Amino acid sequence: MATTNAPLNILISAAGDDQKWKSVMVDRLPDANIVTEEDDYDPETIDYALFWKQPQGLIKTLPKLKAIFSLGAGVDHVVSSPSLPKELPVIRLEDAGMADQMVQYHLYAALHFMRDFDVYSAQQAKADWTQHDVARISQCRVGVMGLGALGSAVASSLSNLGFTVSGWSRSMKAIEGISTYAGKETLAEFLGQSDILICLLPRTSETENVLNSSTLSFLPKGAAIINAARGAMINEADLLRAIDTGHLRGAFLDVAATEPLPESHPFWDHGKIRITPHIAAATRFEESVDQIAENLDRLARGETPRGLVNREVGY
Amino acid sequence: MATTNAPLNILISAAGDDQKWKSVMVDRLPDANIVTEEDDYDPETIDYALFWKQPQGLIKTLPKLKAIFSLGAGVDHVVSSPSLPKELPVIRLEDAGMADQMVQYHLYAALHFMRDFDVYSAQQAKADWTQHDVARISQCRVGVMGLGALGSAVASSLSNLGFTVSGWSRSMKAIEGISTYAGKETLAEFLGQSDILICLLPRTSETENVLNSSTLSFLPKGAAIINAARGAMINEADLLRAIDTGHLRGAFLDVAATEPLPESHPFWDHGKIRITPHIAAATRFEESVDQIAENLDRLARGETPRGLVNREVGY
Repeated sequence: MATTNAPLNILISAAGDDQKWKSVMVDRLPDANIVTEEDDYDPETIDYALFWKQPQGLIKTLPKLKAIFSLGAGVDHVVSSPSLPKELPVIRLEDAGMADQMVQYHLYAALHFMRDFDVYSAQQAKADWTQHDVARISQCRVGVMGLGALGSAVASSLSNLGFTVSGWSRSMKAIEGISTYAGKETLAEFLGQSDILICLLPRTSETENVLNSSTLSFLPKGAAIINAARGAMINEADLLRAIDTGHLRGAFLDVAATEPLPESHPFWDHGKIRITPHIAAATRFEESVDQIAENLDRLARGETPRGLVNREVGY
Repeated sequence: MATTNAPLNILISAAGDDQKWKSVMVDRLPDANIVTEEDDYDPETIDYALFWKQPQGLIKTLPKLKAIFSLGAGVDHVVSSPSLPKELPVIRLEDAGMADQMVQYHLYAALHFMRDFDVYSAQQAKADWTQHDVARISQCRVGVMGLGALGSAVASSLSNLGFTVSGWSRSMKAIEGISTYAGKETLAEFLGQSDILICLLPRTSETENVLNSSTLSFLPKGAAIINAARGAMINEADLLRAIDTGHLRGAFLDVAATEPLPESHPFWDHGKIRITPHIAAATRFEESVDQIAENLDRLARGETPRGLVNREVGY
């Protein structure tokens, strides 16, 4: 094992955040040789890459790459690269400080509908003091699509607050206090009992466009949608139609098919849509680097890293 | 004890909700004689009264009244009556389904500021996708004024979510995970470390106007106010000035000095104020009547009822 004690060579390509990632990585792994694309480095020596929206073709220049760490919970931007070798391990961040933020975002968005804050916000604009009965939280049924690290944290926190929560995922999961559904054949039943639908699915070829005119029609009349996963999961025209016909109550969205959302997009000034600029959960540098460092240790010991992407299913 | 087995005579006067209260009380206490002001009843026979915004002078007509049950958490509307005998017990509802609702309201309102939903709502109106860093929840310091059944439930739930929470009350309270302050001499220090200030004080002669230009100036620059207690607690002109000068970030209000809020009131169209029409916590009929029935049993056994108001301090 001649390379055991050789310093690791790690390349970072993270859109605008290269220097921030580098400084946290250097602090955490002082013995490694950590470079960004701005540095003078030999691509032939790079062992590991930390990527977020890396440039097209960069992977091809790294012949000795042993694994890619995605600097986000979603890995769609990495695995969609046509130059990604099929056998190269891709490792995603699991939680890394994002679960808490997702819980905060979804508590707010779910209460926005359950406690009529959407209605009262519209009333404020008309100086209207009309009071509505306060719903019982246990009578508000929340459905969470996607039960990974983020989805299951969100489902549990909403259940703990008193919502009646169910979850849907590709393969069966068990979460205390949550009714779970699995597989396409249960989707209509799951949607049919979701007064508030939360989408926290990973983006894969199977989940793109999963919410469309057909699936949205399964939701109970007056249901609301929360999507802080990926814009590609929802057909935006279908969503607008379902809201404008009165089938859906509204939507709370952190993502869109095109980001930044174009100025002319109908979401911006739609009275029943709240939009935030993809801020539901920011990657936390310190927690992420801790997780990456622990996975590098696992790889050095020949163990399977946590968060290893199943390339067959895409997450 | 000749009266032990005589049916209780109970009068209900609850603004527009007399019939609803009566029907729940009749179900719960089938042996009692329960009347409203619309019924033909002998005022000399009334043992107990259930009051919410009862008419002026009604108390005087009830010579044998043994206690008044207030149909809300606040008792200011009962104890402010000039005809209320000094020694007559006044019993308030404690929680009665309101704590959960207050927790929901304050989770939403606190996250509204901590997660910049106020900022993003204003950005949406301008089709502005600008992203801001997500604050760490532990670095957001919430101060809760008033640590009764509602204030302590709200303080604990915000602490459990990750906020750094402190509490202030007239007399010292101990709540797990919360730093507590007591008494006027600690108010400036308490306010000085409250990035989000929640007011859940009972309304008394001492708490009226407690938030004014002087006390608001103790808050850190950029602090936000949440008030779902009573409008009388805040000097509204001082609050507006503190927001408009930029000292305060904004306010989330469920109550106002005059309710319904007059159409011309500046709160309605103020971009940094969210107003809801006194709906943070509705009295729950069933839970409340359970609590009243248990207290009637305690009174029949000669015990002290729960929620007995201390007339000296006014709550």
